[in-house]
Amino acid sequence: MIVAASALAPLPRLLYEPIVRAALVEDLGLGGDITSEATVRAGLRATATLRSRVRGVLAGLDVACEAFRLLDPDARIDAAVRDGEALAAGARIAQIVCDARALLGAERTALNLLSHLSGIASTTARYVAATGGRAAICETRKTLPGLRALQKYAVRAGGGANHRLRLDDAILIKDNHVALAGGVTAALDGAFARAGHLVKIEIEVDTLRQLDEVLAHPRGADVILLDNFTTEALAEAVRRTGGRALLEASGGITLETVAAVAATGVDVISIGALTHSVVALDIGLDIAVPAE
Amino acid sequence: MIVAASALAPLPRLLYEPIVRAALVEDLGLGGDITSEATVRAGLRATATLRSRVRGVLAGLDVACEAFRLLDPDARIDAAVRDGEALAAGARIAQIVCDARALLGAERTALNLLSHLSGIASTTARYVAATGGRAAICETRKTLPGLRALQKYAVRAGGGANHRLRLDDAILIKDNHVALAGGVTAALDGAFARAGHLVKIEIEVDTLRQLDEVLAHPRGADVILLDNFTTEALAEAVRRTGGRALLEASGGITLETVAAVAATGVDVISIGALTHSVVALDIGLDIAVPAE
Amino acid sequence: MIVAASALAPLPRLLYEPIVRAALVEDLGLGGDITSEATVRAGLRATATLRSRVRGVLAGLDVACEAFRLLDPDARIDAAVRDGEALAAGARIAQIVCDARALLGAERTALNLLSHLSGIASTTARYVAATGGRAAICETRKTLPGLRALQKYAVRAGGGANHRLRLDDAILIKDNHVALAGGVTAALDGAFARAGHLVKIEIEVDTLRQLDEVLAHPRGADVILLDNFTTEALAEAVRRTGGRALLEASGGITLETVAAVAATGVDVISIGALTHSVVALDIGLDIAVPAE
Amino acid sequence: MIVAASALAPLPRLLYEPIVRAALVEDLGLGGDITSEATVRAGLRATATLRSRVRGVLAGLDVACEAFRLLDPDARIDAAVRDGEALAAGARIAQIVCDARALLGAERTALNLLSHLSGIASTTARYVAATGGRAAICETRKTLPGLRALQKYAVRAGGGANHRLRLDDAILIKDNHVALAGGVTAALDGAFARAGHLVKIEIEVDTLRQLDEVLAHPRGADVILLDNFTTEALAEAVRRTGGRALLEASGGITLETVAAVAATGVDVISIGALTHSVVALDIGLDIAVPAE
Amino acid sequence: MIVAASALAPLPRLLYEPIVRAALVEDLGLGGDITSEATVRAGLRATATLRSRVRGVLAGLDVACEAFRLLDPDARIDAAVRDGEALAAGARIAQIVCDARALLGAERTALNLLSHLSGIASTTARYVAATGGRAAICETRKTLPGLRALQKYAVRAGGGANHRLRLDDAILIKDNHVALAGGVTAALDGAFARAGHLVKIEIEVDTLRQLDEVLAHPRGADVILLDNFTTEALAEAVRRTGGRALLEASGGITLETVAAVAATGVDVISIGALTHSVVALDIGLDIAVPAE
Amino acid sequence: MIVAASALAPLPRLLYEPIVRAALVEDLGLGGDITSEATVRAGLRATATLRSRVRGVLAGLDVACEAFRLLDPDARIDAAVRDGEALAAGARIAQIVCDARALLGAERTALNLLSHLSGIASTTARYVAATGGRAAICETRKTLPGLRALQKYAVRAGGGANHRLRLDDAILIKDNHVALAGGVTAALDGAFARAGHLVKIEIEVDTLRQLDEVLAHPRGADVILLDNFTTEALAEAVRRTGGRALLEASGGITLETVAAVAATGVDVISIGALTHSVVALDIGLDIAVPAE
Repeated sequence: MIVAASALAPLPRLLYEPIVRAALVEDLGLGGDITSEATVRAGLRATATLRSRVRGVLAGLDVACEAFRLLDPDARIDAAVRDGEALAAGARIAQIVCDARALLGAERTALNLLSHLSGIASTTARYVAATGGRAAICETRKTLPGLRALQKYAVRAGGGANHRLRLDDAILIKDNHVALAGGVTAALDGAFARAGHLVKIEIEVDTLRQLDEVLAHPRGADVILLDNFTTEALAEAVRRTGGRALLEASGGITLETVAAVAATGVDVISIGALTHSVVALDIGLDIAVPAE
Repeated sequence: MIVAASALAPLPRLLYEPIVRAALVEDLGLGGDITSEATVRAGLRATATLRSRVRGVLAGLDVACEAFRLLDPDARIDAAVRDGEALAAGARIAQIVCDARALLGAERTALNLLSHLSGIASTTARYVAATGGRAAICETRKTLPGLRALQKYAVRAGGGANHRLRLDDAILIKDNHVALAGGVTAALDGAFARAGHLVKIEIEVDTLRQLDEVLAHPRGADVILLDNFTTEALAEAVRRTGGRALLEASGGITLETVAAVAATGVDVISIGALTHSVVALDIGLDIAVPAE
Repeated sequence: MIVAASALAPLPRLLYEPIVRAALVEDLGLGGDITSEATVRAGLRATATLRSRVRGVLAGLDVACEAFRLLDPDARIDAAVRDGEALAAGARIAQIVCDARALLGAERTALNLLSHLSGIASTTARYVAATGGRAAICETRKTLPGLRALQKYAVRAGGGANHRLRLDDAILIKDNHVALAGGVTAALDGAFARAGHLVKIEIEVDTLRQLDEVLAHPRGADVILLDNFTTEALAEAVRRTGGRALLEASGGITLETVAAVAATGVDVISIGALTHSVVALDIGLDIAVPAE
Repeated sequence: MIVAASALAPLPRLLYEPIVRAALVEDLGLGGDITSEATVRAGLRATATLRSRVRGVLAGLDVACEAFRLLDPDARIDAAVRDGEALAAGARIAQIVCDARALLGAERTALNLLSHLSGIASTTARYVAATGGRAAICETRKTLPGLRALQKYAVRAGGGANHRLRLDDAILIKDNHVALAGGVTAALDGAFARAGHLVKIEIEVDTLRQLDEVLAHPRGADVILLDNFTTEALAEAVRRTGGRALLEASGGITLETVAAVAATGVDVISIGALTHSVVALDIGLDIAVPAE
Repeated sequence: MIVAASALAPLPRLLYEPIVRAALVEDLGLGGDITSEATVRAGLRATATLRSRVRGVLAGLDVACEAFRLLDPDARIDAAVRDGEALAAGARIAQIVCDARALLGAERTALNLLSHLSGIASTTARYVAATGGRAAICETRKTLPGLRALQKYAVRAGGGANHRLRLDDAILIKDNHVALAGGVTAALDGAFARAGHLVKIEIEVDTLRQLDEVLAHPRGADVILLDNFTTEALAEAVRRTGGRALLEASGGITLETVAAVAATGVDVISIGALTHSVVALDIGLDIAVPAE
Repeated sequence: MIVAASALAPLPRLLYEPIVRAALVEDLGLGGDITSEATVRAGLRATATLRSRVRGVLAGLDVACEAFRLLDPDARIDAAVRDGEALAAGARIAQIVCDARALLGAERTALNLLSHLSGIASTTARYVAATGGRAAICETRKTLPGLRALQKYAVRAGGGANHRLRLDDAILIKDNHVALAGGVTAALDGAFARAGHLVKIEIEVDTLRQLDEVLAHPRGADVILLDNFTTEALAEAVRRTGGRALLEASGGITLETVAAVAATGVDVISIGALTHSVVALDIGLDIAVPAE
């Protein structure tokens, strides 16, 4: 395994505040939260508790709470758990003291973000646990438009590592590139000619024969993506490669199969579903009605 | 049932083009698609086919293809299926003739959008089919930040109807509003005082006793949301209401239980998971390598 | 009358701050307030008083004062009046203590917003007073580009109610829709097929005969817009409708005629001029020159 | 008179397209024009005529028609009148052939812009006519947030000239600047020290005595603003100035008094109400229902 | 000389904060400063000193330090020098106490801005010194896209004056305009017809004969730009003009020749290279590693 | 040498169009190009030639010409040279046929972009030529805010290679990181723990002793940055490294010294001045006045 889990660094506010702001504006429209205006007294402060209703891993607490802060700069947030930590069913995540209308107006936006990101972290953590640390778990570029920075962060919160962030930070030669380039060798030659000295090169192979072509290339590749290989073929690929490149397995790998894949000795396992088919973590906001 | 399926109207390009543009920029970064630049000859045109690998319902074809058009204004798209139509496994969705580098550079963005939106439509359609038309199927405000217009559109593509679009277009009094307002009657009074003449009022009730309070209010409510009721309680609510308000059922309703819920006679069934826990539809792009 | 005035809720800062910011940038250009830089000593603090020179109703104080805050985060604002309250001629609205250059640089932007919004509120209040509470007074979608949220808020500040906020939150079938649909019945059928359960349906009629068509429709309409009806025809429409729908009168209604229109028993009166032909309220900023 | 009317140059599309786009998005919301979707057949094309219901001067036709083009790139616009030209009551302004849903969806946005800008041009033209060309008519910085470029253009369309566009392109020393600077001489000294060689300097005076101070300054001023002077005082100011500076009259000048003001010999008359209290010109869109 | 140096006014934060924010986002991408996350302990605070390694003039300190503030709102900045002041080689500019990761993440953005703007100010100051105050030194519109407000400010910081800020605040008739207008007289006539009363008119001439044409025009011009004149021709132009217009010299003027040009008696000298070919001032950030 | 020059791929329009648009709006302000409006007949078409007045390498032609296209969608551009190609002094770059007002209005924006980017490419090409292909020439992150994508592209056009694009696509451990991490080994350990499998790791060393520490690390580094080494020390570093890592030289390398640096055998030479101190290439636009 080549990618260890470092302590999770928080996402810079500059990268998520515009997303939260836009989400609130999307929800407030032109008229704002008319229900809370109609039913809740102006100026009332309320206390609420974010609570997970199921087990999981937290991700996105700062992001979610930005929604409360944007509607009430005086909102007070006391976090009981931090991103990347495990949540028991029923666990208290944070307490929020806030203007009651702001609390209700921001609630949906906050929960949408928190349950989505925690959903990603929780699933990632299950994959990580299943591999027992023998291979790194990565997401892919199959992310939702506008949410990539957040989704990739959530994968890290779940103990995963990040694949390429976008098209410009690494070369990943896929089957279509190989075909259009006229073969593995031509594709690799083009890649080495284009890549700067800080750009890694990865190439996808579909067969062991293609793997051999890559290994036979004078400069090889930094990473080889073994797409839809059986575990037997993966093991054989590990053997043939002999550490000359990192190996990434991908293609239909599930929680049921990931341990066997990791056992083959590949370095990285990438799972598109981590970000393209997210099951939201069930997190709720319990509001305490102030006694008057 | 009160909400019939009308023919699906396309989403105005003005509403989705900025999302697609931002998604492409998110993926291109500062350097662009360096892999395709390195491996594919400039000026090469290629033909590709969007194909569904599983059964489902299409949503977001225009949205997705905007990605190709933004990178190559001369891209030609020939659609074989339209949004809202069923897809067989293996079905050809559209053929795209496009600059090869643009095709590869836009591929991921296009597929991310199309598989997400078609995933929503497909699941919605299963719920709609399960109810046999006895109740409308709605999503909620549990949408992903920045994607609400697209997600709500995809629900319509799947034969569903839309709930509130945002906080300002209808009043929906939830349990916390009732608590903070000091009861059902006070909350409804506040709502009627605030609502303009084109704003509907819905109120959530958790028990039949609360339902009776709503029904006893001199002006009632346009819609009553029955949250987490058993099917027996739903049926009783339908009986007690006697058509004086529309009834919406919500709370943990699944594909397994939705038919039974619809059979109680409620008008609308809302399903948060339609948009908060989307399973992407497996759609791929097959590129034909041009013979030279 | 069905729409009562509830206490005015403040507009969320998220909805107006970008407008104020853009207005300041529009005015500052690339070089800033060169006159104040040239004539006022850096660091000087000044005290100013916002004062109405005529009678009216205040709207937009927070919005306007955001201009001072954006140029001087330490600006201190002490409001003497709140949005929605009446202003006597000469009334002191607020006192502002602020960096002198910031005060002068923001003055025009602040006054442009405040006098425009207070102009709307003041005129609305005159219509509201003229009806004696017998009908709600509404604006229309005849608003100025980019300012709709503010203008609709100002109508509420003047005691009015809001019509539709935009095209997507209610169905309003106008004469052209009826014509293109092929008649009242077809148009209403289309509307019920498209509308979600939280969308109201209003239809415009030009004659009593058309009104009868609407009333004869099995599902009717939530609101009927009586366009350019004489007061006699309005009264007859009220009689024929018998409470089966809300009735809205529109078309050339003025301060002189609005009382008679309200007396017919219609529920809502809409006035395009409230927002399309606004007379700014004469509000000034008196700056006290500090004795040194 | 020093400012002659040159042929009106069109506003660059780059300056108005974002405003029209934002106005449409403000109106379409997340769901679009649900009424037209519900009542008008997809793909239907319609023909419509923009028509002025009253006399006036046209301004903003390109701006307004951009709304149709943004919803239907194939919209065909045939203009019968050009910006800056007079409109008779009932005059046909332009014919539009367009997708019917796009026509209805863009109608309100187009009319809001066109009637506002034509309202400005029409009122400006009345002031210009009243002066008989003896003085230039200008607007002020009392414009509506975000609309300044359009409003200033409309003044030009009405035969007016433009005052400062914003704070950075000319120095205009007002009474408060004079007071904070410590007098007319100090203020002018500061202005000359700050102004680049392409920046004009104007100073406001409230009395003839202050005028004398300005005239006594070694470098004078390019323009002197005579605020709230009687016509007698204006005439005296013209006499005393003797052409050494341009003179601008402002303060409560109306259509009734403007001719007398112009007759005093001042060069420029500025009217805040041209842009802060606009009466929309009554322009409508008549849609021809296609015979099928 | 007609343009004296007034005390430098700070640029409003509203005008530079979006530029700094965008620069940080451009640098942080989707993943942030992964190096500092990997190597610097979370929560560590560090002290750093901005220091000039060479002689020069400071410009942009607020602008640059905004980068630290945006990543760490608690950053403390103690400035030792102010914009417009001279820097000795090795001079301490400011001390920053800040979260260590934020310090490192913002460092490059801050230095890029500060060294660019101080480079402009430093070069400007050299030109200003070389003229001994006999003529104003101006930049042109040859600025870098998006940075004009900052670059023009830096010229002021260096003791220079500003030329036109953009196309709309002054008329500058160049050779091509003259040619397309059909001559100097026609071009000037057009300019006077278009210019409002606060717009200055400048015209470029390439020969003394063209200068005579301008001087012969009944209304002349406010400023005459003498392009690529020899110093002899400049002196002759000064003589012929006799104070009837300001004179600006431009065209290939360097630090070596500027004194001679200023000695001819022209009022303004404009230097495109001030902003189009900027040599960054060598400024560094020295970080003190905290003893633990 | 490890980075060969591949054929230059054009920058996607999506990445530069917003920059050009913003630059035009910055220049047009609220009033547009009033000089051209005043002096050039509406509708006149003109022909112009972009011409380099000096030797150099072209970069940014598409970017620059976008300015003409944005003001006149019918502009016709015929390019005689392509980005990355050499320009002789006086070389014709492109011919433009365009609305004359648009041509003049866009001229400055187009030239500002083209001369800046070609300046970068030209200087880069000189460095590349000086090394005779023995080492790759790279820029750094010392770019101008908002222009990084363009500047990095211009370096490629000049035959250079790109360093990191931003903070998130590679780890570059600098002296301060080493100091704050507590040494080379700790810093490298942290980097390997954080980096995903597609992220390269570079570390800066200031001495040969530090180099030895890096080489002694069990996992080494992908690239080692030798900062401010003498050529002797560089040669020794090459010897000691023996191909185990790529070596990058940086620090005060000039056109005079770069050949000697390249001769030491380092792989990459990075030059901050390529983008932080750009000398604009002298490119002009000659407009042919149409004979009428």
